[in-house]
Amino acid sequence: MFESIHFHSTGRKITNASDPEVLDRLRSIVGAENVVVDPTRVEPYGGDAVKEKFPPEAVVFPESTVQMVAILKLANEARFPVTARGGGVGYTGGAVPVDGGIVIGTDRMNKILEINADDLYAVTQPGITTFELQQAVEKQGLMFAPDPASYKDSFIGGNIAENAGGMRTPKYGVTKHHVLGLEVVTATGDVIRTGGKTVKNVVGFDLTGLMCGSEGMLGIITEATVKLLPMPEATATVRANFPSMEAGCKVLTKFTPLGLLPMAMEVIDKFCIAAIEELFHFGLSLEAGAILLVAVDGSTEEVERSSKIVERVIAENGGFDVIRAASREEEAKLWDVRRAISPSLMKYGTLKINEDVVVPRSKVPELVATIEQIGKKHDTFVANFGHAGDGNIHVNFVVDREDASAVARARECVAETFQLSVDLGGTISGEHGIGYVKAPYLSYAIDKPTLEIMKGIKKVFDPNGILNPGKMFV
Amino acid sequence: MFESIHFHSTGRKITNASDPEVLDRLRSIVGAENVVVDPTRVEPYGGDAVKEKFPPEAVVFPESTVQMVAILKLANEARFPVTARGGGVGYTGGAVPVDGGIVIGTDRMNKILEINADDLYAVTQPGITTFELQQAVEKQGLMFAPDPASYKDSFIGGNIAENAGGMRTPKYGVTKHHVLGLEVVTATGDVIRTGGKTVKNVVGFDLTGLMCGSEGMLGIITEATVKLLPMPEATATVRANFPSMEAGCKVLTKFTPLGLLPMAMEVIDKFCIAAIEELFHFGLSLEAGAILLVAVDGSTEEVERSSKIVERVIAENGGFDVIRAASREEEAKLWDVRRAISPSLMKYGTLKINEDVVVPRSKVPELVATIEQIGKKHDTFVANFGHAGDGNIHVNFVVDREDASAVARARECVAETFQLSVDLGGTISGEHGIGYVKAPYLSYAIDKPTLEIMKGIKKVFDPNGILNPGKMFV
Repeated sequence: MFESIHFHSTGRKITNASDPEVLDRLRSIVGAENVVVDPTRVEPYGGDAVKEKFPPEAVVFPESTVQMVAILKLANEARFPVTARGGGVGYTGGAVPVDGGIVIGTDRMNKILEINADDLYAVTQPGITTFELQQAVEKQGLMFAPDPASYKDSFIGGNIAENAGGMRTPKYGVTKHHVLGLEVVTATGDVIRTGGKTVKNVVGFDLTGLMCGSEGMLGIITEATVKLLPMPEATATVRANFPSMEAGCKVLTKFTPLGLLPMAMEVIDKFCIAAIEELFHFGLSLEAGAILLVAVDGSTEEVERSSKIVERVIAENGGFDVIRAASREEEAKLWDVRRAISPSLMKYGTLKINEDVVVPRSKVPELVATIEQIGKKHDTFVANFGHAGDGNIHVNFVVDREDASAVARARECVAETFQLSVDLGGTISGEHGIGYVKAPYLSYAIDKPTLEIMKGIKKVFDPNGILNPGKMFV
Repeated sequence: MFESIHFHSTGRKITNASDPEVLDRLRSIVGAENVVVDPTRVEPYGGDAVKEKFPPEAVVFPESTVQMVAILKLANEARFPVTARGGGVGYTGGAVPVDGGIVIGTDRMNKILEINADDLYAVTQPGITTFELQQAVEKQGLMFAPDPASYKDSFIGGNIAENAGGMRTPKYGVTKHHVLGLEVVTATGDVIRTGGKTVKNVVGFDLTGLMCGSEGMLGIITEATVKLLPMPEATATVRANFPSMEAGCKVLTKFTPLGLLPMAMEVIDKFCIAAIEELFHFGLSLEAGAILLVAVDGSTEEVERSSKIVERVIAENGGFDVIRAASREEEAKLWDVRRAISPSLMKYGTLKINEDVVVPRSKVPELVATIEQIGKKHDTFVANFGHAGDGNIHVNFVVDREDASAVARARECVAETFQLSVDLGGTISGEHGIGYVKAPYLSYAIDKPTLEIMKGIKKVFDPNGILNPGKMFV
């Protein structure tokens, strides 16, 4: 079905970026101390959570839009690849310079420029973590809702460029739903301004939406205006076991007739449960076919009311060992199980291929059951968990990194899982993006005319193809 | 500052669409009965709420995507303008064929294809009203949240193409936040599919967001997958008078520290109040500088709790004559005042220029006060009302349609209001779009590099400029 998950060979590429004159000009733009070329120092900028290495020729750290413009004008003129990088913790290589060139680290563009509680927005530079942004707005009683699991490491610029998801999606949507406006430097060094400070804005085409999830291929975000919400008073979490994945997922649909929209609905399959229990001894029931976690938020009274309803609905629909936690500390304990999954799975091998397919949520049981069969067919360990409330499941094929045959089998599993997700009415990525890792599979989900439009748009922003080459479509 | 609000002269234009061979081919695509050329019958398709007439050469009613493809391939080959039309109730001429050609009426593409309560989405053709869609999903206990004032007449296709707003924006956002995926026919007759059925989807560029608000200039929507929510159990409305617009708007910021996010927050200025009272005798206080309406929704208990908080906060912050309504009937009575504005204002003249500027909501008092001065300066009656919770204010300059000097002065007021809105950190349209009416002002809000990108994107979708020419930028 496919030859290799990776169509780029790792290792150092040489482009015009290595020209001494180009490097001197870069140094004159950002200062010599902000251009890193030492091979050992650039190496960390060559990878992400995929754990493959494509070291850049240089890493450049601008501190302003003006410097960003100068860098991109130079790159466009001298024709070398430019890959923007935030926290560098992506799962599909979006920030990795597979074709060489320079990496632009946004680390120095790390100021929050405004937090406006009256008008419910914040203006920030791209180079802070989403956690830092959340902490800053929480001090004023406000919430920035998107919460990708990587929020302590991923930068807000990267989260926007990847349209990051997370657990709160059932109630709050994804990152793009919380971006009001952007300042972006295009490949030609032009500064464009999209959207504004208001939720309503229908002036010209919606370039804000287009930039969200564009993976650094259309421009580099230098400033973002994001939407804030009043911080809800309280949260609560209910955790329960279910006899099967099907029973656990079925219960999610029972909240709708009650007018209830939980903030998060997470599921963990029996293979994850076994792995967690073996390593951590939480006392989880090995009889359980699935664990379901449901979180609600709102006023203290509303959370008390709705979490009791969640508890009751779960109990009435086959859930057992139901626990409700309403203090932050107790809630954290319930979520410990969720956080224990990743380390636990590593006992099955040294390579964990973590995919993030998405299907309409009622299809999750069929998705997971069929993936189990795919794993069996290819003799590959598989365990699933994830965001059942929005149908975004993390599928983990775990093998030994050194066993070429096992790795090949796992990759066959991945391809079949992608096709399955599309067949079930979903798609190949819910929140990780395409990058270079999923690029060979893009045609599973995007037909040719749609792809041609995307390629046309790419050319409008980046006529010479200098921005993040080798990603998405190639 | 500008010569005319309208740079197109009305009246019938003749293009290749009137070629008898072209008309015959159109008849063979959709059936002779679905191609209307009779001048009296095409006339209604030449205007919208702007009340100017640009009659099309023909109105064509396809019933399927296949027919839409054939029409667009023909138009692209024979080079004549194509303007898609939904309910035809827009305020900026988005559906009006200012350059002639054909209008495509989506009236026959009026089926809801799927309502999926388990997975919280609906799939619909473009040619039903948003009200019809809302009614259909409400029967299943679900809500389609966007609620433009025109929802009983505007089609869902048009609402998406215009990225319609409405009153529920403070809590629920705008139309684009509720569109999951689209099937679109581009100007070249290619069918593209954007997004999908899931909230999370990061596969390729986000063309769904780009299509929302693209005003029929990039493609024609033939199918939409929209997001549904559980229907909240209850709603309640609080209405109060305030001594001034400033006091009324200031109270909106007081809900945030309480973790409260009202669904709707509407304001009515003293000029509207006087006009309403004169015509309808509601018994409104003419002492009031502003009326504020605040609506909340949620569980019955939560609505009881939060509406009492709203009532208390209003009373503590200078609101008087506070009334709370918790039944649908009582609520409707409170909102009657809001609905009475438009007819009341017509006593000041025969031409009401209704603009929809938007500013960060804390700037609404300054916006309204300055607009009052602008009106005085140009001897033009002005009254303001609108969506204070999201800063989107409807500014109404009312003059006598036959008084050329008064109309010119009103248009000068409009131009100054647009510049003011931009200066206050907002923009020239919150929910009505640009169309041909606001096209001369686009540069107030969009700078040249950003405009060039938009024009480039237009060319990708529509290389020959056949789709809705004369709109947005020209």
